[in-house]
Amino acid sequence: MPILNKDMQVCISLSGRPSNLGTRFHNFLYDELGLNFVYKAFTTDDLEGAVRGIRALGLRGCSVSMPFKEAIIPLVDNLEPSALAIESVNTVVNEDGLLTASNTDYEAVAQLLDEHAVDPTSRVVVRGSGGMAKAVVAAFRGAGFDDLTVLARNERAGSTLADKYGYAWAAHDPEPDFDVIVNVTPLGMRGAEEDALAFGGAFVHRASVVFDVVAFPAETPLIAAGRAAGKRLITGAEVVALQAARQFERYTGVALTPEQVARASAFSRAE
Amino acid sequence: MPILNKDMQVCISLSGRPSNLGTRFHNFLYDELGLNFVYKAFTTDDLEGAVRGIRALGLRGCSVSMPFKEAIIPLVDNLEPSALAIESVNTVVNEDGLLTASNTDYEAVAQLLDEHAVDPTSRVVVRGSGGMAKAVVAAFRGAGFDDLTVLARNERAGSTLADKYGYAWAAHDPEPDFDVIVNVTPLGMRGAEEDALAFGGAFVHRASVVFDVVAFPAETPLIAAGRAAGKRLITGAEVVALQAARQFERYTGVALTPEQVARASAFSRAE
Repeated sequence: MPILNKDMQVCISLSGRPSNLGTRFHNFLYDELGLNFVYKAFTTDDLEGAVRGIRALGLRGCSVSMPFKEAIIPLVDNLEPSALAIESVNTVVNEDGLLTASNTDYEAVAQLLDEHAVDPTSRVVVRGSGGMAKAVVAAFRGAGFDDLTVLARNERAGSTLADKYGYAWAAHDPEPDFDVIVNVTPLGMRGAEEDALAFGGAFVHRASVVFDVVAFPAETPLIAAGRAAGKRLITGAEVVALQAARQFERYTGVALTPEQVARASAFSRAE
Repeated sequence: MPILNKDMQVCISLSGRPSNLGTRFHNFLYDELGLNFVYKAFTTDDLEGAVRGIRALGLRGCSVSMPFKEAIIPLVDNLEPSALAIESVNTVVNEDGLLTASNTDYEAVAQLLDEHAVDPTSRVVVRGSGGMAKAVVAAFRGAGFDDLTVLARNERAGSTLADKYGYAWAAHDPEPDFDVIVNVTPLGMRGAEEDALAFGGAFVHRASVVFDVVAFPAETPLIAAGRAAGKRLITGAEVVALQAARQFERYTGVALTPEQVARASAFSRAE
């Protein structure tokens, strides 16, 4: 990496618990492409002050993670449809002082459904009702899927999410009769629940597509079970890399090849 | 330089017209010393917002240049004596949200007067009455010099500065009868006035110490004339390097050797 200089454009991230993923992904590609940019992760206990600082210092962009994805909405100037549709922001671009917010999680999921040619007539079940579940369910709706069940013990969050997109809600596991099973909970994530299988064997057996949004590890118990059963797989590592790529393109104006995204993703995960 | 990571401490600068000097000086030493820090120059049209951003993002330090050196005073929490004495700030350190301001220009000039063993009984003339002249004149006063003339066409600025420290003021060149001649104007600075000699030959001839605060080039016409005449020299390059070193030590807690300062200074100037 070259020594920093005064003319570099600066992108940051704001999250409750910063990881190195974005910092490594973006800086790797700035370096590989010779872009005069630099990226650094931050946290804050003063979101309004942080956004004011973004404006005052002319920072180029800001990636937004939990718990700021909704709170940042009143602090920006424009919402792109991707953020408006789900009232959740993960990307802010500063265009000469005008802050425009978008949601590249939504875009990444939509793109993956398309790239993996998931059939819109599939029966889908999505486990989870948090912020990311909103992006996932909205992307299924945007891609024309009509048969989807939101599976979430929290009635308020689960039924609200399902209702918003005209889908069904279930508090408890229904019959395992779905073509596409999607996990958007921490089940299988590194930490306390890393051994948890997000869907039982009967769900995996019946499905043709297994989709896990958990990114660390990429090989969750669910993905491992799907792989063993020869299912088509969509992993959280793909989601994270693609959403970062869409952010990168907004910040820099440079479109990435799939190979570049794969290299940056591998680098960002290897620490 | 290693790839950036989320845990790096961030220092910035704020100035009306950022240069690469600080960015190169500090990052060079972070790299050489293996410190997990990064430094980047900024400008702003919202100083209050920038300072709020420093607090909200937990930036470790901020170097302050014209035109913010006085305007930032009400925005910080503490003033060290170096900043209080001259009501001018060039350094802000963020200690867990408490912003403490100091002035390392003042400290650098004081240190150089000491290192070059300039005799406090010398007759001194200082040309200039701007923000940096304040730091220079105050440093002479702090070092015990009693005989100093502020030479400045602007009566208000010149006489105010002289009066504040109990010194004389002159609007026009007095008799060239000074042991120490000091330039704190843009005369000799790269640009429109780079050929201007800040003091006439008679002043140089009579002096024993020639001190030019202009840092670009280090070899101003005044310094060149002093060198040709075999005078003791203090250059703006020395001032800039030392004040940056004092900032570096405040930001990182690491004391620099003269050799480290010299290497970083040479690197920062070589672009």
